[in-house]
Amino acid sequence: MVPRYSRPAMSAIWEPEARYRIWFEIEAHAAVKMGEMGTVPPSAGKALWDWWATNPRIDVAAIDAIEAVTKHDVIAFLDWVAQQVGPEARFMHQGMTSSDVLDTTLNVQLVKAADILIADLDALLAAIERRAQEHKYTPTIGRSHGIHAEPVTFGLKLAQAHAEFSRNRARLVLAREDVATCAISGAVGTFANVDPVVEEYVAEKMGLGIEPVSTQVIPRDRHAMFFAVLGVIASSIERLAVEVRHLQRTEVLEAEEYFSPGQKGSSAMPHKRNPILTENLTGLARLVRSAVVPAMENVALWHERDISHSSVERFIGPDATITLDFALGRLTGVIDKLLIYPARMQKNLDRMGGLVHSQRVLLALTQAGLSRDESYRLVQRNAMKVWESDGELSLLELLKADADVTAALSVEVIEDKFNLDYHFKHVDTIFARVFG
Amino acid sequence: MVPRYSRPAMSAIWEPEARYRIWFEIEAHAAVKMGEMGTVPPSAGKALWDWWATNPRIDVAAIDAIEAVTKHDVIAFLDWVAQQVGPEARFMHQGMTSSDVLDTTLNVQLVKAADILIADLDALLAAIERRAQEHKYTPTIGRSHGIHAEPVTFGLKLAQAHAEFSRNRARLVLAREDVATCAISGAVGTFANVDPVVEEYVAEKMGLGIEPVSTQVIPRDRHAMFFAVLGVIASSIERLAVEVRHLQRTEVLEAEEYFSPGQKGSSAMPHKRNPILTENLTGLARLVRSAVVPAMENVALWHERDISHSSVERFIGPDATITLDFALGRLTGVIDKLLIYPARMQKNLDRMGGLVHSQRVLLALTQAGLSRDESYRLVQRNAMKVWESDGELSLLELLKADADVTAALSVEVIEDKFNLDYHFKHVDTIFARVFG
Amino acid sequence: MVPRYSRPAMSAIWEPEARYRIWFEIEAHAAVKMGEMGTVPPSAGKALWDWWATNPRIDVAAIDAIEAVTKHDVIAFLDWVAQQVGPEARFMHQGMTSSDVLDTTLNVQLVKAADILIADLDALLAAIERRAQEHKYTPTIGRSHGIHAEPVTFGLKLAQAHAEFSRNRARLVLAREDVATCAISGAVGTFANVDPVVEEYVAEKMGLGIEPVSTQVIPRDRHAMFFAVLGVIASSIERLAVEVRHLQRTEVLEAEEYFSPGQKGSSAMPHKRNPILTENLTGLARLVRSAVVPAMENVALWHERDISHSSVERFIGPDATITLDFALGRLTGVIDKLLIYPARMQKNLDRMGGLVHSQRVLLALTQAGLSRDESYRLVQRNAMKVWESDGELSLLELLKADADVTAALSVEVIEDKFNLDYHFKHVDTIFARVFG
Amino acid sequence: MVPRYSRPAMSAIWEPEARYRIWFEIEAHAAVKMGEMGTVPPSAGKALWDWWATNPRIDVAAIDAIEAVTKHDVIAFLDWVAQQVGPEARFMHQGMTSSDVLDTTLNVQLVKAADILIADLDALLAAIERRAQEHKYTPTIGRSHGIHAEPVTFGLKLAQAHAEFSRNRARLVLAREDVATCAISGAVGTFANVDPVVEEYVAEKMGLGIEPVSTQVIPRDRHAMFFAVLGVIASSIERLAVEVRHLQRTEVLEAEEYFSPGQKGSSAMPHKRNPILTENLTGLARLVRSAVVPAMENVALWHERDISHSSVERFIGPDATITLDFALGRLTGVIDKLLIYPARMQKNLDRMGGLVHSQRVLLALTQAGLSRDESYRLVQRNAMKVWESDGELSLLELLKADADVTAALSVEVIEDKFNLDYHFKHVDTIFARVFG
Repeated sequence: MVPRYSRPAMSAIWEPEARYRIWFEIEAHAAVKMGEMGTVPPSAGKALWDWWATNPRIDVAAIDAIEAVTKHDVIAFLDWVAQQVGPEARFMHQGMTSSDVLDTTLNVQLVKAADILIADLDALLAAIERRAQEHKYTPTIGRSHGIHAEPVTFGLKLAQAHAEFSRNRARLVLAREDVATCAISGAVGTFANVDPVVEEYVAEKMGLGIEPVSTQVIPRDRHAMFFAVLGVIASSIERLAVEVRHLQRTEVLEAEEYFSPGQKGSSAMPHKRNPILTENLTGLARLVRSAVVPAMENVALWHERDISHSSVERFIGPDATITLDFALGRLTGVIDKLLIYPARMQKNLDRMGGLVHSQRVLLALTQAGLSRDESYRLVQRNAMKVWESDGELSLLELLKADADVTAALSVEVIEDKFNLDYHFKHVDTIFARVFG
Repeated sequence: MVPRYSRPAMSAIWEPEARYRIWFEIEAHAAVKMGEMGTVPPSAGKALWDWWATNPRIDVAAIDAIEAVTKHDVIAFLDWVAQQVGPEARFMHQGMTSSDVLDTTLNVQLVKAADILIADLDALLAAIERRAQEHKYTPTIGRSHGIHAEPVTFGLKLAQAHAEFSRNRARLVLAREDVATCAISGAVGTFANVDPVVEEYVAEKMGLGIEPVSTQVIPRDRHAMFFAVLGVIASSIERLAVEVRHLQRTEVLEAEEYFSPGQKGSSAMPHKRNPILTENLTGLARLVRSAVVPAMENVALWHERDISHSSVERFIGPDATITLDFALGRLTGVIDKLLIYPARMQKNLDRMGGLVHSQRVLLALTQAGLSRDESYRLVQRNAMKVWESDGELSLLELLKADADVTAALSVEVIEDKFNLDYHFKHVDTIFARVFG
Repeated sequence: MVPRYSRPAMSAIWEPEARYRIWFEIEAHAAVKMGEMGTVPPSAGKALWDWWATNPRIDVAAIDAIEAVTKHDVIAFLDWVAQQVGPEARFMHQGMTSSDVLDTTLNVQLVKAADILIADLDALLAAIERRAQEHKYTPTIGRSHGIHAEPVTFGLKLAQAHAEFSRNRARLVLAREDVATCAISGAVGTFANVDPVVEEYVAEKMGLGIEPVSTQVIPRDRHAMFFAVLGVIASSIERLAVEVRHLQRTEVLEAEEYFSPGQKGSSAMPHKRNPILTENLTGLARLVRSAVVPAMENVALWHERDISHSSVERFIGPDATITLDFALGRLTGVIDKLLIYPARMQKNLDRMGGLVHSQRVLLALTQAGLSRDESYRLVQRNAMKVWESDGELSLLELLKADADVTAALSVEVIEDKFNLDYHFKHVDTIFARVFG
Repeated sequence: MVPRYSRPAMSAIWEPEARYRIWFEIEAHAAVKMGEMGTVPPSAGKALWDWWATNPRIDVAAIDAIEAVTKHDVIAFLDWVAQQVGPEARFMHQGMTSSDVLDTTLNVQLVKAADILIADLDALLAAIERRAQEHKYTPTIGRSHGIHAEPVTFGLKLAQAHAEFSRNRARLVLAREDVATCAISGAVGTFANVDPVVEEYVAEKMGLGIEPVSTQVIPRDRHAMFFAVLGVIASSIERLAVEVRHLQRTEVLEAEEYFSPGQKGSSAMPHKRNPILTENLTGLARLVRSAVVPAMENVALWHERDISHSSVERFIGPDATITLDFALGRLTGVIDKLLIYPARMQKNLDRMGGLVHSQRVLLALTQAGLSRDESYRLVQRNAMKVWESDGELSLLELLKADADVTAALSVEVIEDKFNLDYHFKHVDTIFARVFG
């Protein structure tokens, strides 16, 4: 976790204190159910929750001190709780294994993280939609291979981003479900010393499903899937970030990351406003993506379990979720406040002297009865002049002045071929698909 | 694609001929709908399908020869079709862009591939379930960290694998849906020259959904998700393969990959039966997983599209699906014919002289009123003897001969603590969760 | 391997026939040395080489047919050779293990591949140097964050690429050395049945070093390193490819991938020349890079060896080397024939109305005694006008017309600050560092 | 960075204070040289170093507070230094760009990190060598595919590890060199406002080489190579860790991670000593390896620079080096104190009743004149009995009792074939290759 790329709500999930709180809840819920079943005295669960109701502070340092002696984190925690609660607490953890607590806790953390990320996506989707609607019909050049192709609208660009992040939201909802399981199944997952009803009870209380079959550990294919989805979301962030970086290039300058009116650009050069937020997002995307392969390598644990996954998760658990949360927040800010320059878009669109319309003229000539070759020749000879003038000449004017062209097409028809609206007649359809 | 790791049905999807067949279908369906709408003569679609009904051979070499001249694969194909079908064919592809054909085709291929992989998973699940039921109550030692822990059944090991691959099946069904879209939206995705109803029609005919908003290309987050799911499945394959490799170790030998009775082991050493199929699967898992990151790097195309994704997909499209299909088939064979040795499992289980039961005795002593420390001491002093004898001595016998122990527990009670069935009382519950 | 991304010389290395030829040489050299040592009759090696001198065809199909029966590739090959050579051939492979042949062969292939790649890099370096010298002093704008910064020369851009690929060449030479080892050490690497002098002899004959300690297999850290270096080279290819893609953008257009004078751009739009070669290189870079992680995962084989690495290498061995060879060749062609537009570079450089020189004026004002704040204010008020005019106004003219500025600086001094040469005074130094 | 997987010396390199100290040194050295050249007053450098000689505390919080206002880390630092040193400090950073300081600093940090890692490797190599010499002739079974193959010595296993880590050390020395460069070249790397001699001077003072051509940034292929080497080292760590995990399996138990005599195994089961250190190392290896791909993705910056690499490096710079340092230290401890059980090795070696020697007997029979088939039959019929007895019978005894065998071979000859020393005759040669 790098503090400058983190936000408090997500970071809090991964604090030691938050972890211990989840541990406690799992143990206390289990104790209650075991009490009901007569495995332990019913007073045990009550004592635990009574103490909890006092809203006690978790003394992380004290627990650490015990762990330094016992060399076992869960035992250290149980000892500390027992010191606070008294003898009733000794019935905690009966028949359970450390992994029951640790794995269920990790899943609770991932579920909480997913909830924040889903909210992040909602905020991002709202920002994208607002700007998309605002620029639904703002003409801009569509580019394939970085080369001017045909006109689109700026709203369409954002509609695509919206559709993509909507898919990501749906994927994340499923990935959240994938890790939302609870295992309380004892040493090697046989429930030998803890009844499955305890698992069911704790699962329900913690807002999780039961893990159908655990082998001491919750199987890591669930987590692999979870981190894979984070990697896909990060890649979509990169896509939108790269779009902004391109638009902000000096020669393009169709949009810019927000800067406040009084803000100084770098030194004396007022044009030096760098798309550093989206460059940063490009890097953060690489980082989030780097969690995917180790999460997959974690799946093949030996037999019923080994602990090789644990160190990996201590890194990628916090890092991938905190960084993605930060990145989604940053991207939302970028889109929300993006400076969008329709005039410049129009200027760029016109920059090729109308060459983007050449294909429509070609088609009209063909439809007017000229052969495809002849049509191509007529368009091409005018288009080349425009091209060589670097956009100084206008294709429309040249065509209207070309007798061979006007012999086939009236001036009105030619002019109609230069109508941008032709390209935008289905924008509404697409918006309806995306925004409903 | 490496021939030795491929199977015909999956490879066929990626043959040039199969690809051209899909191209044709997309173009012909589009022509029909355009004919209905009056964009092109209705005779065009009819001519195409009439020719197709003759079940014509696709002359890949001829198309390649045209491409060598035109430098454009789709145009080469259209030219060749036009040569076969006659002048009506010139209305094909009207208002469409190459990507409409290419991207939709890739998705058709991935959908077909997913269908095979889903069938593969079904076959694997069936094999796993059969062997799981067969060994539902076959006792074997559960191992954490590679060290003997407590008893499980061999059926439970397979039940866990079943649950894991069931999840993978569900993920793949969703990933299939993710790539099951069709785009016929023209140059930069605006439908400027092709009506959205054509897309809807072709999509339905090809068994796909529509791509809500495409930008010449179908967005690559869909494919990133698809390959990520393949990577997760591969990781689960690795897990089960590693389990078999461990079980087949000389010192463990609880199971072996099948070898026919007459088959020679390596040279004169009859024990030299190597788990080469599962070792191979471990390697193939690495390979399938290696497609995930490039698929994610493919997401951030520039503006409306660049073509950097294409070369990546020419590799990972066939490689990841063909290899995963092969791996699933191989794993199914391994599980189906796995030689399982219950006697050896029992021998290994007994190898520690009953130490796996020490914890239950400890608990019984505590419940009989001894302090935890005293209980621990009593168990430990006997356990250590067993341990030092390398399993020659029996913990049960030693305990029964320890007066301090028998003072607290009757022989019947002690013997009861060595009952394996205690550990298996919830096997049925777990099986019900997994197999319903 | 995807044929369209392969070149014959590199592909040939990975053909079955080439592989068998290397197998033969290893076996025959070993037989000669064993003959000298009296382990086998000296006639054995002679018979093998005599046959080889007849330049026999390798009948791959026949060998495959034997393998279909024996299920063992090396044995199948030895049988086939024995059929050709006669009884003397039965002394081949004495005391050796299959891995001795297979692993040494893989290394021979990687060394041959490295030799081609080194030659590729030399060709690329030559092309880069030629174009760098050609444009040593061609002014162009340097861009940080995609935003105009200060002037550089086009030659400097290429000098950087040259330095980077020189480093890559040096890395590849070392990586080649890393895999240039030969192991002939028998079953588990103890030389129990084959004397180390055989290994030494074969190594020397095959142009390899000895593997100091092998454990049946040659350790895979060597190969991990090799593929990692290929991944770094691929990343440098991506960097230069991305540079060209940026330069070819419609709005920038400072360079273009070559197209022949008569070549048609896409349809009627003469500007539609897409940087498809460099986009393709961007994708190929992702692919080559994807070999790195599986190659690293191959390192941790179990005990003396398992065979999980083998399937991975059957893919990445050919794929990564063939693809990188192709990519280097393609990049060399791109650079060699790159259309470079100095006039457009100058136009872009001037586009900001001289704002790129504002910093030097600022400094001059400070040195003339004005406070930094005052200097900044003077420059800024003129710079803002230029900026708002979108480059229509000239900073130089505005400054010369600003009395507060001319009060501090003479017109000559102001004009001097707009001198591009100021920025290029150390180009020669840098070229000397790079090109010697 | 996860505190539990970090050691102080390496972590200290990445502390803010350490970073600022390097910044200062770079700036102060540059100021001295600029003073010599007359670019700035000679008093500037002197003032800086005079202040430094007072061993001042770096007030990180104060610098952070300034950065919160200026939004620029380097400027904030320079302001703070100026506050401490007085007016002379305003000449710092003349003609330099922030990247000059930041990139050179990162390289200094990586060089320092490499120095620690090289020392780590030396310590690991020493531990491995000591244990290798100690067990140079300790017989143990060599395993291919996890199956018993032929005898090796435990020293040979460690000799292989030594050779592998020696290669890694050599790679790291080169990787260190790769990142040991200094760039002081100004805005876009043209040295327009700072003379190359300043770079040369600072480089020498900081123990670095000059960066031949920088483009504001130091090219990231250097760092990609660096992290790739860390990934290879991590993979070698995984290999040795996996070996230990295998050896510690209950059924194998030829070695164990150290535990102190009084240390309790898990609960009452004295055999429950888990190889958690090496499992942890397996996970840490995955983590270090995950830095490789993002480091490679960082290479393709746009034009002269973008800042996407920066966020990636803030994570992987500390994480990969700190984790690898920790892992090397942990592995050294594991090897240093590894509990090695020669008796158990011998027991396992004998476990197959001498089957590991069957190949030598087979060869002897052939050499005694029997056909290969007949020889095979004789050995096989005895070997099968041993195999079916699960090692209860002895191959040697059975062979001596088989009249057909003794007709061909004397008892002495047969017994000689069961001599382990036969396999160890070249151990000395191998040790000489590895340890010199």
